[in-house]
Amino acid sequence: MQTGLRGRDLISLQEWSLEEVETILEVAAELKRDRALGKPHPYLRDRVLAMLFFFSSTRTRASFEAGMAQLGGHAQFIESRTTQIAHGDTAKEIGEILGRYNDGIAIRHVTWGEGNKYIREVASASRVPVLNMQCDMFHPHQILADLMTMREKKGDLRGLTIDVSWAYASSYQKPISVPQDLVLAATRAGMNVRLVHPPEYRLMPEILDQAAENARRSGGSLESMDDFDAGFRGVDVVYAKSWGPLLVAKNDDEGASIGRKYTDWITDARRMATAADDAIFMHPLPADRNIEVADEVIDGPNSVVYDEAENRLHVQKAVMALTMR
Amino acid sequence: MQTGLRGRDLISLQEWSLEEVETILEVAAELKRDRALGKPHPYLRDRVLAMLFFFSSTRTRASFEAGMAQLGGHAQFIESRTTQIAHGDTAKEIGEILGRYNDGIAIRHVTWGEGNKYIREVASASRVPVLNMQCDMFHPHQILADLMTMREKKGDLRGLTIDVSWAYASSYQKPISVPQDLVLAATRAGMNVRLVHPPEYRLMPEILDQAAENARRSGGSLESMDDFDAGFRGVDVVYAKSWGPLLVAKNDDEGASIGRKYTDWITDARRMATAADDAIFMHPLPADRNIEVADEVIDGPNSVVYDEAENRLHVQKAVMALTMR
Amino acid sequence: MQTGLRGRDLISLQEWSLEEVETILEVAAELKRDRALGKPHPYLRDRVLAMLFFFSSTRTRASFEAGMAQLGGHAQFIESRTTQIAHGDTAKEIGEILGRYNDGIAIRHVTWGEGNKYIREVASASRVPVLNMQCDMFHPHQILADLMTMREKKGDLRGLTIDVSWAYASSYQKPISVPQDLVLAATRAGMNVRLVHPPEYRLMPEILDQAAENARRSGGSLESMDDFDAGFRGVDVVYAKSWGPLLVAKNDDEGASIGRKYTDWITDARRMATAADDAIFMHPLPADRNIEVADEVIDGPNSVVYDEAENRLHVQKAVMALTMR
Repeated sequence: MQTGLRGRDLISLQEWSLEEVETILEVAAELKRDRALGKPHPYLRDRVLAMLFFFSSTRTRASFEAGMAQLGGHAQFIESRTTQIAHGDTAKEIGEILGRYNDGIAIRHVTWGEGNKYIREVASASRVPVLNMQCDMFHPHQILADLMTMREKKGDLRGLTIDVSWAYASSYQKPISVPQDLVLAATRAGMNVRLVHPPEYRLMPEILDQAAENARRSGGSLESMDDFDAGFRGVDVVYAKSWGPLLVAKNDDEGASIGRKYTDWITDARRMATAADDAIFMHPLPADRNIEVADEVIDGPNSVVYDEAENRLHVQKAVMALTMR
Repeated sequence: MQTGLRGRDLISLQEWSLEEVETILEVAAELKRDRALGKPHPYLRDRVLAMLFFFSSTRTRASFEAGMAQLGGHAQFIESRTTQIAHGDTAKEIGEILGRYNDGIAIRHVTWGEGNKYIREVASASRVPVLNMQCDMFHPHQILADLMTMREKKGDLRGLTIDVSWAYASSYQKPISVPQDLVLAATRAGMNVRLVHPPEYRLMPEILDQAAENARRSGGSLESMDDFDAGFRGVDVVYAKSWGPLLVAKNDDEGASIGRKYTDWITDARRMATAADDAIFMHPLPADRNIEVADEVIDGPNSVVYDEAENRLHVQKAVMALTMR
Repeated sequence: MQTGLRGRDLISLQEWSLEEVETILEVAAELKRDRALGKPHPYLRDRVLAMLFFFSSTRTRASFEAGMAQLGGHAQFIESRTTQIAHGDTAKEIGEILGRYNDGIAIRHVTWGEGNKYIREVASASRVPVLNMQCDMFHPHQILADLMTMREKKGDLRGLTIDVSWAYASSYQKPISVPQDLVLAATRAGMNVRLVHPPEYRLMPEILDQAAENARRSGGSLESMDDFDAGFRGVDVVYAKSWGPLLVAKNDDEGASIGRKYTDWITDARRMATAADDAIFMHPLPADRNIEVADEVIDGPNSVVYDEAENRLHVQKAVMALTMR
C-alpha cells in the first residue's frame, strides 16, 4: 500500500504507481461500503474543491460534487463561460488564485491539443492538487471506475481479454481520452488488450508505445485490429465506444464524413453473443442509443454500465480524500 | 401521526394521506421555530440532493438549496441545458445514476404533457426519493406552503371559503399545476372551494372529479364559476393567479390571444373589499404587478405572500428530512 | 475593537468606523493563520449566503463560496439571468424572500446608475445582512483585501504615498468602484493619495469631497493629477488599473473612443523604476496584460497581486463570520 498521496496531482493514471492505484481502489471499496451502511466518512470536513468545466458534463459534475459533500466538504461548480476565465485570466492566475481559495482544483478541458497542456499549466502554478476530470488525452477517474467495476465483476484482471473498440456515433467527435487511458491501464493490469478501430481512428503513437511497454512488464499483451466483429470473439470485457478521428481529420465536418463510412460499427446482441458467455459490456455514458450500441445490449443482462457509472463516485471520493486531506 | 416516510416520492400531494400531510406540517412548524431560535437541526448531515431544473426558478431553487444546507447537507443545482441531459441521457439513466450519487432527486419540469411523465420515469428508475419541484400537473411543495400559511393565519381550515381564481397576466402561459394541486388540497381539508375562471381556462377533468370526491369525503364543497367579481364575495382566502388555457390553446400565440379577452381579471382593492374583512390574499409569486394583482393588494395589509414564500423553506425541509434520512 | 457587527450591512466601507475595519482585519489575519494551520473555524455551521450576480466574476464568486464552505456554511451561486429576477421579482421581493431563506445576501451589480441603488433597496427589505460584492460606486471587500495586503507588506500605512492611477485597457469600460472606494479608504488610513487620470476619467465629486475630509481628519492628503509618469515618482504603492469614463461618455462606444487617446498609460518596468525601491504593484485582477500592465511588472518581484487576490478570501470570511453569526 502506498499512502503518501497528500498534495499529489492526478492528471494521467500512468503517472501513479500500481501500488498507489491499488490504494485508491481499496479506499474506494471502503467508501462504497460506508455509504451503503450510512457510516459517516467526513474526511474533508469544510474543505473545498474548485471544479472548472470547459465542456459540459452530467456524471462528472454530479459525482464530484456529491462526493465532496459526502466527505463533508464542498465543490464549486465553475463553468468557464460564466467567468472571466475566457477573457483575461491566464492558466497561471487560475492555478495561483483558485489554489489559494481551495483545497483542490478539478478541471475538464477536452479541446484537442489544448486540454492537457492547460491542466498542466494550472497544476504547475497551484499549491493544491489538480485533478483531471477529462482532458484531450486522459480520463483517469473514468478509468479508475472501470478498473473497480471489472474487479468487482471479474476478480483478478491478469490474463483476461478486453475488447477496446471504436464504435460509430452521430452526435459529435468525442475525445480519445477514454480509449487511451484504458489501453494504458489494462496493459498495466496484465490484461490482453485488443485495440480495434478503423484506420482513421488511431490513437497517439507515444501512448501505444507506452501501452506495449506496460504489457511487456505485466505479462499482458496489446494487439491492434481493424475488424469490428473479430474484436468481440471470446473476450471477457467489451468496451466499445465512439471517438473522433482526431489525429487525421482537420475539422469536425471531415471527422463526421469519415465516420459515416463505418455506421455498421454498432454493438448488438449478435456480436455480444460471440464474446465469452459471461462477458460484460461497459460504456462510460452517455451512449448514442441504437447507433453506438443497441438497447438490447446496454439494457441487457451483460451490461454493467450503471455500476460503472456509480463507481465514478467512489473512486473520486477516494482520490479526493487521499490527496486533499 | 404517520412517520414511515423514508424513501417516499412526493410527486402529487393527493398521493399522501391526510395524516402524512399533517406530519409534514408539524415538522415544518418545529423546523421554523428551530431556525428562529438558532437551534441546530442537521438531520441530513452530508446527504446530497440533486435538483434538476428544466425551467428557471428563483424561490424554488433558493429554498431547496438553502434548506438542504440548513439540514447539514448539500443540494446540487443542475440546469438541464448545462448538461448532457438534453442530448443523450434518458430519464431511466438519470434516475439510475443520480439516484446512486445522491440521497434524493428533485425535478422541475413544467412542459405541458411531458413534465409529470418525465418525473415518474425518473422515479421508477431511482433508488432514492424523487421530489416534484413543479410539473405540468402538480406543485406539491407550493401547496404544502399554502396549507401551512392558511393554518397559521386562520387555524382550522374546515368550513372556510377559498376563491381559487384565474387572473390575467401578459408575461407567459403559466402552468396549471398550482390551481390543480390547490383545489385538490383545499377540498381534502374540508374547505368550500370556488374555482373561478373564464371557460377557456379549465383544469383537467380527472382532477376536478377527484376534488369533488375529496369534498364529498371531507364535508367541504367544490363550485365552479366564471364570474371573477362573484368569486371574491365573502371569502376567507383569495388565491387569484394566472395560468394558461393549456387544455384549449394549440400554442402560445393562441393562448396569449385568448388571454387578452380577460385583461380586467385583476385583483384590486375594490374587489378585495368584497371579501371577508379578515380575508387574506395569497400568491405563489412572481406576480405580474398591476396586471395580475394591484400593488395596493399585494403590498397591502391582507397580503400574506412573503410568509407564504417563506413557508416554502420550512415545508420542503420537513419533506426532505422525513424522506431522505 | 468594535465587535457589534452582527446583522450589519457592508455596502460602502466608509459607513464602517475605523475601529470596525480594524476588527475585520484582525479577524481576517486570525482566519488566515487558522487556514494555514488546518485549524477548524466553523463559525457559520449550516448558515447560508445567497450570492446574487448581475455580472460575471471569477475571484469574487470563488472566494465568497469557498469562504462560506470553510466557515461550515454554504453559498448559493445565483446568476440573475438563470432566475425570474430579470422578469418579475422586484428588489423588495428579493430582499424579503432571500432574506428569509438565507442568513446573508451578497450582491454584485455594477451597472452604472443602478447597482448601488438596487443593493440598498434589497438591504432595506432584508432581515439579514447585505454584502456588496461590487456595485457601480463601491467595492468594499476588494478594498479590505487591499488594506490587509498593504499592511502585510508595509506595516503602518500612515504617511505612505499611494499612486491610485487610471491605466488603459481595451477589453471593456470597467466600473469606477475600485478607485472610489480605495481613495476613500487610503485617505482614512492617513496615506498620501495621488489620484491620477486623464480629465475624462474623473470620479464622483461627492466621493472626492469625502476623501478630502478623510485626509483632513487622518493627517493624510489627497492630490489629483493628470500626468501618468509623475504619479509613479517615489511612491510606496502603485495601484494602476483601468476604468471607464462613466461620468462623461454617453455610451460604450464613446467610452472606448476616449480611451484610445491614452493607450500609452501602461505600467511598465521603466515607470515602476521611478517609484520607491521597495514599492509594491497592486491590481485587483483580471488585468489586460501588456495593455494595462506589462508582464514584467505584474509577474515581477514588486508585484503582490496574488497575495492581494488571496486576501479577498480572508477578509470576506471575517466580514461574514462577524455579520452573519
